[in-house]
Amino acid sequence: MPRYRLTVEYDGSGFVGWQKQDNGPSIQGALEEAVRGFCAESVSIFGAGRTDAGVHACAQVCHLDLARAVETDTLRDAVNAHLRPVPIAVLDAAQVSDDFHARFDATGRRYLYRIVNRRSPLALASGRAWHVPQLLDADAMNAGAACLVGHHDFTSFRAAECQAKSPEKTLDRLDVSQHGDEIEIHAAARSFLHNQVRIMVGTLKLVGLGKWRASDVAAALAARDRAAAGPTAPPDGLYLVGVDYS
Amino acid sequence: MPRYRLTVEYDGSGFVGWQKQDNGPSIQGALEEAVRGFCAESVSIFGAGRTDAGVHACAQVCHLDLARAVETDTLRDAVNAHLRPVPIAVLDAAQVSDDFHARFDATGRRYLYRIVNRRSPLALASGRAWHVPQLLDADAMNAGAACLVGHHDFTSFRAAECQAKSPEKTLDRLDVSQHGDEIEIHAAARSFLHNQVRIMVGTLKLVGLGKWRASDVAAALAARDRAAAGPTAPPDGLYLVGVDYS
Repeated sequence: MPRYRLTVEYDGSGFVGWQKQDNGPSIQGALEEAVRGFCAESVSIFGAGRTDAGVHACAQVCHLDLARAVETDTLRDAVNAHLRPVPIAVLDAAQVSDDFHARFDATGRRYLYRIVNRRSPLALASGRAWHVPQLLDADAMNAGAACLVGHHDFTSFRAAECQAKSPEKTLDRLDVSQHGDEIEIHAAARSFLHNQVRIMVGTLKLVGLGKWRASDVAAALAARDRAAAGPTAPPDGLYLVGVDYS
Repeated sequence: MPRYRLTVEYDGSGFVGWQKQDNGPSIQGALEEAVRGFCAESVSIFGAGRTDAGVHACAQVCHLDLARAVETDTLRDAVNAHLRPVPIAVLDAAQVSDDFHARFDATGRRYLYRIVNRRSPLALASGRAWHVPQLLDADAMNAGAACLVGHHDFTSFRAAECQAKSPEKTLDRLDVSQHGDEIEIHAAARSFLHNQVRIMVGTLKLVGLGKWRASDVAAALAARDRAAAGPTAPPDGLYLVGVDYS
């Protein structure tokens, strides 16, 4: 059976997350249904990152097998036609080797977290960014972020329901920059623990507010205790921006 | 009566436009209702630019009079509270002189038009940009745009229902740039004719497709005939990004 890799953009607002669940529409379920609409096959689609409810993707990667080979442009266009008007778009389809696995072969995942830091509520970025009305110090947040980069036990930055075998991860990038009233946090690693980016962002917010210093972030990491880190930032601001393969 | 200037952001998707009309919700109407909710006064709000249905604003400017003076921070926050959950946000409120007029005192208006130029439909930018699936040449569009800058009779780029006394305008800026699959068109002038930006963009798209050359844009301008220019681009991609005062 030929295997295909899809690169997918979505607005996660109205979904229970990437993964199929009983409690509402999922990205995975919508894609599987669109493929079935196109070729009448019940396929299983495997994603590189299981984004949570409300989390967006600029370029999620997933794979699926079809009974018969199809032109990749046809696959992309047909799945998009069957997805309409659901806010999911297949950006690219490519045939890959039979042993390609979107999740297990991924060598890097890149996320962006957007904060809009202003007093007024969000009109244009509603559901697409975290609205923080109190003034944040992005430079201080960036100094705090630097304490988390590297190979560490990230138990403090891990959701209770995280299923990863080990809490040890190598964080390759975590930096904070300000552009007008928008604060962007870029994170990159081979893989992340459940809610890791959102807990790191929720913790850096405490630094931005002046409640914590950078050294408090280092202490929270060393504590290896979820209670030692900050709260989990909301999903609205999080985007899976890319998945890397070697 | 003290006069206030408000700077307002909105997602124009669900509105009939800035101006109050009988056929649906308007930005002006929503703002007037929010002010009434806050201080029980029936006010009239005057905007700098009467954006059409579906057109967005990052920083529309308007003014209103209140019977009694209020703290500007209170005014901003109270109007925002009464607007919720409508996607309109007051970014700033300031007290201004009694003769300030948001529309007549404006010395410049700046617009951004966003095109996403790719085969796949839009998920994240749906309703926020014009989706053009055919490949566009942004450099050619920029050369075409240059033909329109300056003081001209813009009859060819004016909606039939335009109420301006004269079709002569000075276009200070019209440039086209590409960033990944996004094409941004920036336009600036003291004022614009009705639909002028959208007709200019619809015309430049013809250049981007290779159907027109830059010289055809100049010829369309010289024709002083709406039928000589291209179609009107959809409102989704248009943003009023700022209004200038001397």
